[in-house]
Amino acid sequence: MGKFSFENLWSEKSTDAPRKLVNHAEYDFAVAYPPPEGVPMDGLIDGLKTIVDAKSDEVARDMSYYPHVQGEESLRELTAEKIFVDRGIKTDKESIVLCNGSGEANGLIIQAIINPGDYVITEEYVYMGTTNQLNYFGANIVGTKIDDKGLIPEKLEETILNIKKKAGVTPKILYTIPEHQNPTGSILPKDRRIDIIDICKKYGIMILEDDCYVDNRFEGCPEPSFASLDDSGMIAYVGSFSKLIAPGLRMGYFTATDELIDRALSVKIGSGPNQFVAYAIDGFLRSNLNNQRNNYNKLLKDKKEAMEKALEETFDKSNAKWSSPSGGCYTWIEFTDGTNLSSIRDEVFSKGVGYLSGENFAPNGDGQNMARLCFAFESIEKNYDGIKLLGSILKDMKVI
Amino acid sequence: MGKFSFENLWSEKSTDAPRKLVNHAEYDFAVAYPPPEGVPMDGLIDGLKTIVDAKSDEVARDMSYYPHVQGEESLRELTAEKIFVDRGIKTDKESIVLCNGSGEANGLIIQAIINPGDYVITEEYVYMGTTNQLNYFGANIVGTKIDDKGLIPEKLEETILNIKKKAGVTPKILYTIPEHQNPTGSILPKDRRIDIIDICKKYGIMILEDDCYVDNRFEGCPEPSFASLDDSGMIAYVGSFSKLIAPGLRMGYFTATDELIDRALSVKIGSGPNQFVAYAIDGFLRSNLNNQRNNYNKLLKDKKEAMEKALEETFDKSNAKWSSPSGGCYTWIEFTDGTNLSSIRDEVFSKGVGYLSGENFAPNGDGQNMARLCFAFESIEKNYDGIKLLGSILKDMKVI
Repeated sequence: MGKFSFENLWSEKSTDAPRKLVNHAEYDFAVAYPPPEGVPMDGLIDGLKTIVDAKSDEVARDMSYYPHVQGEESLRELTAEKIFVDRGIKTDKESIVLCNGSGEANGLIIQAIINPGDYVITEEYVYMGTTNQLNYFGANIVGTKIDDKGLIPEKLEETILNIKKKAGVTPKILYTIPEHQNPTGSILPKDRRIDIIDICKKYGIMILEDDCYVDNRFEGCPEPSFASLDDSGMIAYVGSFSKLIAPGLRMGYFTATDELIDRALSVKIGSGPNQFVAYAIDGFLRSNLNNQRNNYNKLLKDKKEAMEKALEETFDKSNAKWSSPSGGCYTWIEFTDGTNLSSIRDEVFSKGVGYLSGENFAPNGDGQNMARLCFAFESIEKNYDGIKLLGSILKDMKVI
Repeated sequence: MGKFSFENLWSEKSTDAPRKLVNHAEYDFAVAYPPPEGVPMDGLIDGLKTIVDAKSDEVARDMSYYPHVQGEESLRELTAEKIFVDRGIKTDKESIVLCNGSGEANGLIIQAIINPGDYVITEEYVYMGTTNQLNYFGANIVGTKIDDKGLIPEKLEETILNIKKKAGVTPKILYTIPEHQNPTGSILPKDRRIDIIDICKKYGIMILEDDCYVDNRFEGCPEPSFASLDDSGMIAYVGSFSKLIAPGLRMGYFTATDELIDRALSVKIGSGPNQFVAYAIDGFLRSNLNNQRNNYNKLLKDKKEAMEKALEETFDKSNAKWSSPSGGCYTWIEFTDGTNLSSIRDEVFSKGVGYLSGENFAPNGDGQNMARLCFAFESIEKNYDGIKLLGSILKDMKVI
């Protein structure tokens, strides 16, 4: 039989780009993964067993349903307790929406708010998963200046006024990762958060707070969440179990006002998130939350220190500077102006070291002289060896 | 603090409709769920354990990755084997895409093809989950006449010609559930499938074959799949583990040509489907596929017979007729013209019996005198008692 032609059938929004498959360098610092040594598979299986044994009829019935649009009730309850204890957020299971990863949570909120052409402000460098979604839904993204503490309130207000002046509209959303920011690792101080709430409120801009790294702190104490500093309803708070347990679980969540939850769910296609996984997380975390967090954070600290040691031994502070984060998964490195880590990325990758150069995180495409290095995934030894190798590759290529 | 106003922020596509929560009647025949008694929770936990024990390092590494866009490799391999053995489809793991339920599979294919205003043909009565998605993406849906064997090739060609004549365009997709059709339970004979392939090919229409009930046969042998009867690439084949194991797993799949897979994945937001669940399904099914299927189908058969017995004892064949399916989860009942099961649905629900009236499945809104009764979910006793109760409610209301 001849080949059927789809030529006249394709939709305008689909493309013939080959599907995206991830390739891993030998030393893979380009990833965004937590420590595989810390993924508690046995604990999750035990957690699942605990729940199934405790309420087998209820579990079987609920598994043969399509999931509740907000996800499994007991995990919503645990999540509400967790973000009250950890983040000072007063909420309950009725106001928690479990999602297929925090990406879905961000996506639903974006779709509840954004029409094509609307403006969104983010940090100057910010998580590409969210900027990809914002682009997909037609938002204009404007990055606002950051320093080593993150967003700068005065600069934020300047950015808002600039958009109002140039585009004649007010931005609708400030999207921010205030704790262990991705990619820079910065932590936004409480006083700045308060100022930013005031500024956003003044202009009627909602805050989308992405707190997905808050559990990954290995030094010091967290700053209060935006959501705990305001009770006007302007903040949607997004969290995740990806960086506390494992991304492969695909379980994140958000909480917001009832009306925002209804709006966000009104654009949701498909059913609620996975109940099977929810049982495993629920059963596991009820007796292991602190152990799991401590275990991960010990791994993260050791790995970060190994990478930092290699950075100090390898690079000259006259042409490179790097962050020393107290949590999260990434070190952010900045070379002197004119260095182009973007154009040499494939060659360095082929020689064994993966990284993500800065322009991937910049709405305006800047940042070729910067890179995000994930210290969380590779082993301590590979973190050290990989940075040494990166140094010698860059020297050989006369980049540094 | 005052309440923050979102009034000027909502997107056009979001609505303030309250989130949809499912209420269950005492005798709930409105659902689309498999037998809860057959959900193999212990088997799934054992399956998960088998996989984790066999390859713990690989599992931990893969769990800390974001999933492959097509889903976990070993389950893709098993799925390819299963649909070759069961459905005669020659494919391999590279051409299987695991999805967050078969709903996501259908949705991705629809988005790869449909621009707003395009035409899609379906059975006259068909699964509302898909028509909801088609509506969401702006398709014009035209139902084509069916009989107790499903699609009628001559009527299909008439429908195509009518659309060409009236709208001046050719439909792009024929969406069909050929095996244990939802809601009618019909099974499309092989010779009709062959004729339908020829007709669709003649007009350049692709076939979206939704085979999600094929495992639920308790009598006779399945007809060959559309996908096994054609090698031109015009057929996208969708399947699911929802009705073989449990909907709560949220795991479905599709296979299609490489170019259609690329197109479908080009519109996918978010990452691949759940690996944790994939391990459990993979580990479970590798040693329990036939047991699980036989166990489910024994339950389905007994439950269907209990409902059928009650229907025969309760309703008069002069004013009602009902299907006697050889598989799937539903009996389709049709009362005499003029009976309106839609307008009395809430009252009957409040008296204890849930059903879905026919217009829910009809692109043109017809079918108020029909209803889908799910026999799969309630117990044998409740299937019998619930139908008897339905009869007495309808008699009391002077509907029959």
